[in-house]
Amino acid sequence: MHKLGLRGVFVPVVTPFTRDFQVDRRRYLGFCRWLISQDAGLAVFGTNSEAASLAFDERRELLPYLVEHGIDPGRLMPGTGTCSLPETIALTQQAVALGCAGVLMLPPFYYKGHSDAELFRYYASVIDAVGSSRLRIYLYHIPQFTGVPISLPLIDRLVQAYPDTVVGIKDSSGDWSNTEAMLKAYPDFSIFPASEALLEKALPLGAAGCISATANIQPGAIARLIREWTPQRQARVSAVRAIVQAYPMIPALKAIIAHYADDGGWGSVRPPLGELAAERVQSLLEKLTECQFAMPGLATEVNG
Amino acid sequence: MHKLGLRGVFVPVVTPFTRDFQVDRRRYLGFCRWLISQDAGLAVFGTNSEAASLAFDERRELLPYLVEHGIDPGRLMPGTGTCSLPETIALTQQAVALGCAGVLMLPPFYYKGHSDAELFRYYASVIDAVGSSRLRIYLYHIPQFTGVPISLPLIDRLVQAYPDTVVGIKDSSGDWSNTEAMLKAYPDFSIFPASEALLEKALPLGAAGCISATANIQPGAIARLIREWTPQRQARVSAVRAIVQAYPMIPALKAIIAHYADDGGWGSVRPPLGELAAERVQSLLEKLTECQFAMPGLATEVNG
Repeated sequence: MHKLGLRGVFVPVVTPFTRDFQVDRRRYLGFCRWLISQDAGLAVFGTNSEAASLAFDERRELLPYLVEHGIDPGRLMPGTGTCSLPETIALTQQAVALGCAGVLMLPPFYYKGHSDAELFRYYASVIDAVGSSRLRIYLYHIPQFTGVPISLPLIDRLVQAYPDTVVGIKDSSGDWSNTEAMLKAYPDFSIFPASEALLEKALPLGAAGCISATANIQPGAIARLIREWTPQRQARVSAVRAIVQAYPMIPALKAIIAHYADDGGWGSVRPPLGELAAERVQSLLEKLTECQFAMPGLATEVNG
Repeated sequence: MHKLGLRGVFVPVVTPFTRDFQVDRRRYLGFCRWLISQDAGLAVFGTNSEAASLAFDERRELLPYLVEHGIDPGRLMPGTGTCSLPETIALTQQAVALGCAGVLMLPPFYYKGHSDAELFRYYASVIDAVGSSRLRIYLYHIPQFTGVPISLPLIDRLVQAYPDTVVGIKDSSGDWSNTEAMLKAYPDFSIFPASEALLEKALPLGAAGCISATANIQPGAIARLIREWTPQRQARVSAVRAIVQAYPMIPALKAIIAHYADDGGWGSVRPPLGELAAERVQSLLEKLTECQFAMPGLATEVNG
C-alpha cells in the first residue's frame, strides 16, 4: 500500500499578512519551521492558506524562499492548481524543480459542468507539459469551493494513464461515504481526509493520514495519533477540531496562532475574508483554554 | 440617466488559441477590429473570453497589445476581477492607465459565503488602491460561476461610498426578476443584461444595452436593435441567440467564427473546456444557415 504516496499529517499552512495585506515572510518562515518541528508536512498554498487570494507571482516567490531558508522540500506538498492551465503548469514545474515531495492540485474552478473527459484532458495537459518522472500529484476534491468535483471514474482514468504520477487525493468534501468509497476502491492510493476527526474511521481503511485546517494548531498531536492511534488521542484532537470549526476557519486559526505565539501581527486576513470580531475571538480562546489546549514551543520558535 | 455609464452592446470577446493552447494574437486583433467595425464595444477578458483560463501575465500583455495596435481604449471594458486582491488591483490599474472606458469586475470567486461587509471591503480595497478618479467599475453578477452573488444591499453600499466609480453592473444571473429589481432600484446605474433576448423587456426599463456571449457573432444586429428597437429586429437576434445557446457556448461561438471567417484556426478552446464534436458543429451551422445568418465583413476583416 501507498507504494508512491506520502503519509502523515500535512498542514495547509495559514499565510500571515501585514496590516496592508502583504505576505509577511518572516512570520511565515517561523511558523513553517515550528510545524516541521512538530513532525508535520507542509501543504502550503491550500484553501486555508488563502492561496486563491495570493498573486501568481507571490506563490512563485514564496516557495523558493522557504526552500532557500532551510525548509526541507521533501516535506512540502504545495498547492499548484489554479484556473489557468499555463499558471498551473508553471507552479507545478517549479515545485518539481525545487524537489517538493508532491503537489496538491485543485481542478480549474471557474467554469463548471465539465465532463470527465474534459477534466482528464486538463490534467493530462499539465502532466505532459511538466514532463517529469519526479512529479507526484495529489488531486484535490473540494466541490463546495470549486463546484468541480473529482469523480471516481476520473480518478480511474488518471491512474490508468499516469500510475506513477497521480498517486493520491485530498478529500475535502466532508462526505464520508465518498472518502470511504475511495479508500475501498484504491488501496494503493494515498488518500487524505480533510479532518483529523475522521482518522478513527479512515486509518483502519488505509488512509494515508490527513490534510486538515486545524493541523495548523495541533500538528504534533495529529502526527502522534497517526503514528500510534489511541482512543484518548483521537478524542482529544477531535475535541479541539470541534471547537474551532464552529468559527470561520481561517480567521479563527490566525487568532489562535496570534494568541499562542503572543504575536498580534498574526491577525490579518486578506480580503475578501474578514477578521473575527474581538468577542468571538475571546469566546474561542476561552473554550480552548477550558480544555487545556496548548501549542508547545510555538512562541519560542516564531519569536526566537 | 446613465450620467457616467456606457451604453450599447459590449462583446465578451472570445480568445483564439493556437493548437498548443497559446493565445493567437493575430486572430485576436483581427476579430476585435471586426467587432469595433460593427459598432460594438469590447468587454475583453469576460467569461466567454476564457479569461479565467488565461494567465495573469497573458492578460497584462494582451490589453496593451490591443491599444498599441489601434483599438480605441474608449471602446474597451476589460474584465479585471480575479480571486486575488493584488492581481485585481494590478489589472485595474493597467486598464485605467491605458484609458479604458471601464472595467467589468468579478468578485473574488474561490471562497464562498461572504457577508456584504466583506465584499464591500474587498471592492473598497481595490478602488482605494487604484486611487484614480478615472476608474469606472461595472460589477459582474454571475453567481452560477462564482458562487458569490452581488446583492442589492451591496450595490447600495458601493454606490453610496463610490458614486463616481461604481457606475454599473452586468447581470448574468439569467434571473429576470433580479435584473428588473436592479433596473427599478437604480435608474442612474448602467445595467447590462447578459442576453440580447432580454432587450425587449430591459430597454423600456432603462437598461444601458447588453453584454452578451452571442454578441460575438451578431454585434451589428444587436447594436442596431439598441439604437432603434423594432419587434422584427428583436425577433431576429433572439432567434439566433436561441439556436446557439442550445450548445456549449464558447466552443459553439468559436466554431461559428471559424466557419464564417473561413478559418479553421479558430477552433481551439483551452482546457478545461472541450471542443464541439464535428457532428454538433454541423447541426449548429445548419440551423444558422436555415435562418440565413451571416457575419458581414468578417472574412475580409480577419483575413484581409
